[in-house]
Amino acid sequence: KTHIDVIASSRVVRLPGLIDIHVHLREPGATHKEDFASGTAAALAGGVTSVLVMPNTNPPVTDKASFALAHKLARIGARCDYGLYLGAGPDNAETLPKIASNSAGLKMYLNETFTSLRLDDMSTWMKHFDNWPSHMPIVAHAEGRTTAAILFIAELHDRPVHIAHVAKKEEIEIIRAAKDRGMQVTCEVAPHHLFLTSGDLDVLGHGRGQVRPMLGTKADQDALWENMDIIDCFATDHAPHTEDEKNSAKPPPGFPGLETMLPLLLTAVHEGRLTIDDIVDRLYNNPRKIFNLPEQKDTYIEVDLDEEWIIPQHTKFSKAKWTPFAGRRVHGTVRRVVMRNEVAYIDGQILVPPGFGQDVRATPAGLPAPLTVQVPPTGGGT
Amino acid sequence: KTHIDVIASSRVVRLPGLIDIHVHLREPGATHKEDFASGTAAALAGGVTSVLVMPNTNPPVTDKASFALAHKLARIGARCDYGLYLGAGPDNAETLPKIASNSAGLKMYLNETFTSLRLDDMSTWMKHFDNWPSHMPIVAHAEGRTTAAILFIAELHDRPVHIAHVAKKEEIEIIRAAKDRGMQVTCEVAPHHLFLTSGDLDVLGHGRGQVRPMLGTKADQDALWENMDIIDCFATDHAPHTEDEKNSAKPPPGFPGLETMLPLLLTAVHEGRLTIDDIVDRLYNNPRKIFNLPEQKDTYIEVDLDEEWIIPQHTKFSKAKWTPFAGRRVHGTVRRVVMRNEVAYIDGQILVPPGFGQDVRATPAGLPAPLTVQVPPTGGGT
Ligand SMILES: [Zn+2]
Ligand SMILES: [Zn+2]
Ligand SMILES: [Zn+2]
Ligand SMILES: [Zn+2]
Ligand SMILES: [Zn+2]
Ligand SMILES: [Zn+2]
Ligand SMILES: [Zn+2]
Ligand SMILES: [Zn+2]
Repeated sequence: KTHIDVIASSRVVRLPGLIDIHVHLREPGATHKEDFASGTAAALAGGVTSVLVMPNTNPPVTDKASFALAHKLARIGARCDYGLYLGAGPDNAETLPKIASNSAGLKMYLNETFTSLRLDDMSTWMKHFDNWPSHMPIVAHAEGRTTAAILFIAELHDRPVHIAHVAKKEEIEIIRAAKDRGMQVTCEVAPHHLFLTSGDLDVLGHGRGQVRPMLGTKADQDALWENMDIIDCFATDHAPHTEDEKNSAKPPPGFPGLETMLPLLLTAVHEGRLTIDDIVDRLYNNPRKIFNLPEQKDTYIEVDLDEEWIIPQHTKFSKAKWTPFAGRRVHGTVRRVVMRNEVAYIDGQILVPPGFGQDVRATPAGLPAPLTVQVPPTGGGT
Repeated sequence: KTHIDVIASSRVVRLPGLIDIHVHLREPGATHKEDFASGTAAALAGGVTSVLVMPNTNPPVTDKASFALAHKLARIGARCDYGLYLGAGPDNAETLPKIASNSAGLKMYLNETFTSLRLDDMSTWMKHFDNWPSHMPIVAHAEGRTTAAILFIAELHDRPVHIAHVAKKEEIEIIRAAKDRGMQVTCEVAPHHLFLTSGDLDVLGHGRGQVRPMLGTKADQDALWENMDIIDCFATDHAPHTEDEKNSAKPPPGFPGLETMLPLLLTAVHEGRLTIDDIVDRLYNNPRKIFNLPEQKDTYIEVDLDEEWIIPQHTKFSKAKWTPFAGRRVHGTVRRVVMRNEVAYIDGQILVPPGFGQDVRATPAGLPAPLTVQVPPTGGGT
């Protein structure tokens, strides 16, 4: 019972530090949108103690030099732990394997989005599958029929593939069909596809609402919830742009998400649509398995299940300073984040400096200790 | 040696009547472009004695009533044998199976082309795979990554699929990879993708040159020739539009092809790039196997291997009255077509009336007789 403190009649539970396998921290190249220091502060405030960081920066992380630069910036700037993806390009299939083992995995962009890394040609996709080390993860941005196409190429090469931000009914249905056949596919869903639909665009704004994959219909959203049992991970796809950029004539696609994901998910727990175990599986156990991540020793978060609050117009730590969830009433909040026995975050305050974070691939991977997540018996509180 | 007549020092060989598994005859709905009578006359002039006819007419052939209408028009109009495809639509997956056995197969349009039948949603593709009888063929218009997507869905459902008009390097490479893994995929290539590239557009005209899939690069064309061993069929994708339509501001995609396919292929034989057996396999043996077509009794064509001629601006029988191959010097021509012991075509003259053609699914399928194609020893002629 040591993990439950009774603070003014609210239930506080201790959970493992969450792992967000899909974030964009914009450094190098667009540090007015975000940088390692600000993005990992947002992570901690959201209960996230490890982030896997996408390579579509400027320069993109696609070779030894850009990978070294990103590592240096992360080492200096990150407050929480991190892994860095390498980006698949048209010409780097042969050279990436040499630096693969220091990366979170290979990211393949197969549709138009906020990147210069798009791979149009299936012959190139196959080259990456032929070259990338078989023990290292491959993550694909693959929307609609492209989901089936990359699953086919993974199947041809007898390798697992992880599908980023599944958003559409047809995508989750093809993934279910593949899993039913025993294929090695895993997938993640982003909070905005679970909690927003295209029906929210009139209120949210059609420019601000731009995101890839776009918000789906109610039928798409329902299909995600109905197939929750085969969704392996939640991941924010935290993709900060400033409010001015989002309100401009050419709004770039993407939402910030680190500070709002857990409160939204805890609200779904409160409503009986999810359990705490569902969250821990999808934000800790499964990310660790899929990406072969080390245990985070003496690291946990304390979550107040009963705090009710309204998501503000301007979030506190991400430089995005806006959120598509503004005005939403949520139920649950992060009270305290402890990393390596140090309090990294408490009640709105970040207590660890840039540089406190460690590279998940540099940590000597010890044997993961058995994890027990305990939730207080129902019937108390609220 | 009965199959070789010596006519003025040229070599004439007898081949089986060719089967073109992919033609658009535009009836009902656009008979100014083509109809069963004109299109099947073009077929006979090209040595084709059976055509499988696409369902993207007006109305499209997607239900019992439109299928009955198409059958009636074909029975009245066709001079050569024919089969009629059914078109997969968003709402007919449950109803098509009832009429499937009288069809050539199911055609699924998965990319934008000259049709109202496009299926965007993979959930719908899967419904068709779940419902369509397993012994009946499925043909997909599936370009680029859509090739891999439909192969994946076929693989999930343990069924064969035939890929129409393969045109790009990445497409033929993914099909090779699938065949290497023992998957049940077959494919066809159209003459215009074998004999034209995007480099021909300046001469051909960028409007007239519109076709789906578009003409590829030299690298795409080379990839098709290099993978000739895994190309199961040649098929014209005969898609007639009038010259005025092709020269208009909004040119519809598609080329006529029935009158020019065999001369182009025979020219490749003359150049040593193909053999007569390659042609017979891809235009007779494999189409019969893939589509389970009956033997055409007492039916054959006589081809002059040595006739040299220049493809004219205006072809004779198709109402399209233009060809993208105009001005090209070819080597080889159709002299005579015999169907059911009647001369159907001889030296530029059609001798059978509309209504002479029979439905390939109505013919009682006897045991196919062993086929022997004999080619004269090399060294003679030319
Ligand atoms: Zn390969
Ligand atoms: Zn993405
Ligand atoms: Zn992303
Ligand atoms: Zn409550
Ligand atoms: Zn199915
Ligand atoms: Zn087509
Ligand atoms: Zn066609
Ligand atoms: Zn010659």
